[in-house]
Amino acid sequence: MTSPPALSHSDREAILFANEAFYAAFAGRDYATMDALWADGDVTCIHPGWPPLRGRDAVMTSWRDILAHEPPDVSVHRAEVSLQGGVAVVTCIELIPGPARPQALSATNVFVKQGSVWKVSHHQAGIANVDPRTLGQKEKPAVN
Amino acid sequence: MTSPPALSHSDREAILFANEAFYAAFAGRDYATMDALWADGDVTCIHPGWPPLRGRDAVMTSWRDILAHEPPDVSVHRAEVSLQGGVAVVTCIELIPGPARPQALSATNVFVKQGSVWKVSHHQAGIANVDPRTLGQKEKPAVN
Repeated sequence: MTSPPALSHSDREAILFANEAFYAAFAGRDYATMDALWADGDVTCIHPGWPPLRGRDAVMTSWRDILAHEPPDVSVHRAEVSLQGGVAVVTCIELIPGPARPQALSATNVFVKQGSVWKVSHHQAGIANVDPRTLGQKEKPAVN
Repeated sequence: MTSPPALSHSDREAILFANEAFYAAFAGRDYATMDALWADGDVTCIHPGWPPLRGRDAVMTSWRDILAHEPPDVSVHRAEVSLQGGVAVVTCIELIPGPARPQALSATNVFVKQGSVWKVSHHQAGIANVDPRTLGQKEKPAVN
């Protein structure tokens, strides 16, 4: 990565669009879309408070259960794309409704290009001490 | 990743060794080694409770601060390597001392190969509801 390959503008847009689609499927309880967004292969996932899950069956079973049981009305903020060794690592802040005020989580979504499509190969989210008021309204991700 | 490239036995061993070295540097307050373990380029890091950090300067500044201020006596368990689009994603459980019993965290470490060396390009850890008694003693990572 000393001389990282450039990520094309269209790739960056596609990755941020896929990241938005991930959260739209999450908030919308849309398992079919969530399933289509995940890569084939040796994927991994760490839900908040959970031990790591590995393998597509374990990961998609967890999403099926989460989406079937009142998933939070999640929104995504401050999505940024980093190219790391040929994969795209998106970091972002998730906001979910809380009893007093929204709860922020810091999240990672790793995207791999399969054919011409960027797909999720890893997700992790965990509670973050971020004041939701600093995040403003739901943002469209900046393409930078 | 439908037909993922094979990860050689020596690569897998090198990745697990680098993952062990990461936690040894963490527990040993060894900033120089931690710095050498991180990749060059557009790296990212999410410490427990923190917002995402991006860029080598921000990430290494955070590690310098953490290692200078009584880092926890961390140990690593259940490290597993997944090959995702040419990078290695290691998931594991971290244990740190707690007031009553050790606290478990679920962690991700992404490794990229720079030259002949696997280096850390992303780290995230977050509190996990895992009973430390199920983890047994500190393990040597299995090469599977």
